[in-house]
Amino acid sequence: MRRAIGIAVLGAGTVGTEVLRLLAEQGDELAARVGAPLELRGVAVRRPDRVRDLPVDPALFTKDAAALVIRPDVDVVVELVGGVELTRGWLLSALAAGKSVVTANKALLAEAAAALQDAAAGSGAHLYYEASVGAAIPLLRPLRESLAGDRVHRVLGIVNGTTNYILSRMDATGASFDDALEEATALGYAEADPTGDVEGFDAAYKAAILASLAFHTTVTGDQVHREGITEVTAADIASARATGATIKLLCVCERGEEGISVRVHPAMVPRAHPLAGVGDAFNAVFVEAESAGSLMFYGRGAGGAPTASAVLGDLVTVARAVAEGRPGTAESRHAELPVLPMADTITRYHVSLDVADRPGVLAAVAAAFSQRDVSIRTVRQEGLGGDASLVLVTHAARDGDLAATVEDLRHLDAVRSVRSVLRVEGGEL
Amino acid sequence: MRRAIGIAVLGAGTVGTEVLRLLAEQGDELAARVGAPLELRGVAVRRPDRVRDLPVDPALFTKDAAALVIRPDVDVVVELVGGVELTRGWLLSALAAGKSVVTANKALLAEAAAALQDAAAGSGAHLYYEASVGAAIPLLRPLRESLAGDRVHRVLGIVNGTTNYILSRMDATGASFDDALEEATALGYAEADPTGDVEGFDAAYKAAILASLAFHTTVTGDQVHREGITEVTAADIASARATGATIKLLCVCERGEEGISVRVHPAMVPRAHPLAGVGDAFNAVFVEAESAGSLMFYGRGAGGAPTASAVLGDLVTVARAVAEGRPGTAESRHAELPVLPMADTITRYHVSLDVADRPGVLAAVAAAFSQRDVSIRTVRQEGLGGDASLVLVTHAARDGDLAATVEDLRHLDAVRSVRSVLRVEGGEL
Repeated sequence: MRRAIGIAVLGAGTVGTEVLRLLAEQGDELAARVGAPLELRGVAVRRPDRVRDLPVDPALFTKDAAALVIRPDVDVVVELVGGVELTRGWLLSALAAGKSVVTANKALLAEAAAALQDAAAGSGAHLYYEASVGAAIPLLRPLRESLAGDRVHRVLGIVNGTTNYILSRMDATGASFDDALEEATALGYAEADPTGDVEGFDAAYKAAILASLAFHTTVTGDQVHREGITEVTAADIASARATGATIKLLCVCERGEEGISVRVHPAMVPRAHPLAGVGDAFNAVFVEAESAGSLMFYGRGAGGAPTASAVLGDLVTVARAVAEGRPGTAESRHAELPVLPMADTITRYHVSLDVADRPGVLAAVAAAFSQRDVSIRTVRQEGLGGDASLVLVTHAARDGDLAATVEDLRHLDAVRSVRSVLRVEGGEL
Repeated sequence: MRRAIGIAVLGAGTVGTEVLRLLAEQGDELAARVGAPLELRGVAVRRPDRVRDLPVDPALFTKDAAALVIRPDVDVVVELVGGVELTRGWLLSALAAGKSVVTANKALLAEAAAALQDAAAGSGAHLYYEASVGAAIPLLRPLRESLAGDRVHRVLGIVNGTTNYILSRMDATGASFDDALEEATALGYAEADPTGDVEGFDAAYKAAILASLAFHTTVTGDQVHREGITEVTAADIASARATGATIKLLCVCERGEEGISVRVHPAMVPRAHPLAGVGDAFNAVFVEAESAGSLMFYGRGAGGAPTASAVLGDLVTVARAVAEGRPGTAESRHAELPVLPMADTITRYHVSLDVADRPGVLAAVAAAFSQRDVSIRTVRQEGLGGDASLVLVTHAARDGDLAATVEDLRHLDAVRSVRSVLRVEGGEL
């Protein structure tokens, strides 16, 4: 067997602990798969004195991550700290020094993937980050490799378990957003500060990573149009049910003729679409490709064990390559398609209006749509008198024209209020 | 850009035609992804004079596949002929000569994977065969690489679209097997001779490939226990419905304490299981792993375009490696777990009996089970008098004991006939 591969682990939180445990317990099996033993050479943590109950020689703990990642006896750096500020510098210097990197850090990838990949390409190091999207669901490797000979048209993903749990509960029980969030928090599905999840930041990071791989283009997190689910009401969910749909927080990556659209927002999804059935805190990513047709990948998208599984999968791949002396391959960004502004994205709206119950209302509303060149697909009138409402579903149109139409509607005499505006994805309602 | 990579294609049937078309149309994009142009150096077909309407220089056609695969200007051989007799020799000699191989040939892989892999390892050639299971659904790469750091417990797959279409129609319409097969044939889902599909041969090849990768063990097609769906009746489907289940032809790969079980048979699957919802001719593979938890991969498992997509995905990976001078890595077969005989497999039965309607019948039947140490989970009595039937669902037990129990029941006075015996997979009924 070949010489041992030296591993440095940064971070010993939930995922780090699980990775260290598996490294210790499955050492023989991992060595057989890699063709060389994996040897832990250091674990960087903020407070080495506070680490407890880990199957790791205490002498291996260090506070100095920056020194650890470039040590000569380290071949692969496994980064499980999270955040962007510190990790960016550590990983760039590790890659520049020819150390390969395995990371689960979606925020860092969404911000600095290009710089990290350039550093890896410069030194021949490997950079793997399967765990950053969908935890153990193999997504990035299929996009990067299996579909490499195909042309991806669209990726629709449920990539945030917290919001999927909340929306699934609202759909199943009619609960309000606040009540469903409270339940999610009680069950540990939502963090004490749920902003990153419910406002769509987490999903936007993942959208940037998925779009980059699907379209061979550099997409950063701040290029992703992002709307969260805090405005989704029980009435919206009921309205979706009435039209045979459910509401999901989707990440949408689409290739159009003019460029690509990358966005995260709540959307009505017809129940017949496979994503509509993805409940609880599960994640799923639905891919439409030219030749492959429709594919779906499904599984638990979070948690210590599933994330650790993805990290170890990457680690085995990287360590095997290092053991065999194979350099990394640069990720393909040959297309570099333009990222369209949200206004130029083609999408469809489901609009619910409070209207005056008098003749001519529908004509006035319809005129507002047609002035913006937005074609109406269906109109449904609900209620009478003071409670009259109009529900309109449009055909596909520019998002800018749809948004301008909604703005016009707000100023229409016949419209008392715009109750809700939701995009429709995954098929016609 | 690097020197061109020479490609030889064997076979120009449905998939071959599609691959040749994509190679011609997407040449520039493929070259960008590979980092080197792909150059078609030859296409082996049985009757070169019969080939029509392909975007290929006629001078490239040849009848002599054996000579083509070892030509000095060929780097990668794409085998799309199928069958075992001829292809085995061609691919072994290609690999021995250091040519990398991409193939969709499940029968060959199920019979000769070990020999092919040894040949590849010997010369440093690459061997990829993603298209052999689930067409464009990325399955093999996730099993081989993404889950490389995890421990797979079980793989449950719907890997044959023809039988899934037939069973889905029987479930939806109450049709008999013969009527559903006729419909599948009319729609082109079933071949004129459907034996390979409906008797489970196709699924058994795929089971061998999946089990080999999941358990790092050499499993050949003839080690797979195989039962087809020709005996599944409309009454079985109705009985499944009554217990909240549906019948699927499953490929089951399980790791037990004594070894692994690899089998293909119709099984009752509870409707709550994600596989139960996989209808039409779709395929899906459900994987349970130690850390990753439950994962599912879903998509079209057959057809020219999806299969060609998987072939091109492999081709890009292999060509990129060849362009960069990276040798292939031997597939891990380090575990070499024993394949259990079917009798030693642990499973559960759903048994439907025609019984005499008289006192003591249930006691006699229950005694037959307990004598074989098979524990009964539920009993349901249906009908009265001449039509009385007993439906029993067992707890998990050795398949040999379950089969012996059924044999005993056939000889019991109180039992008029054993109507059906089906295994239960994917959860309790």
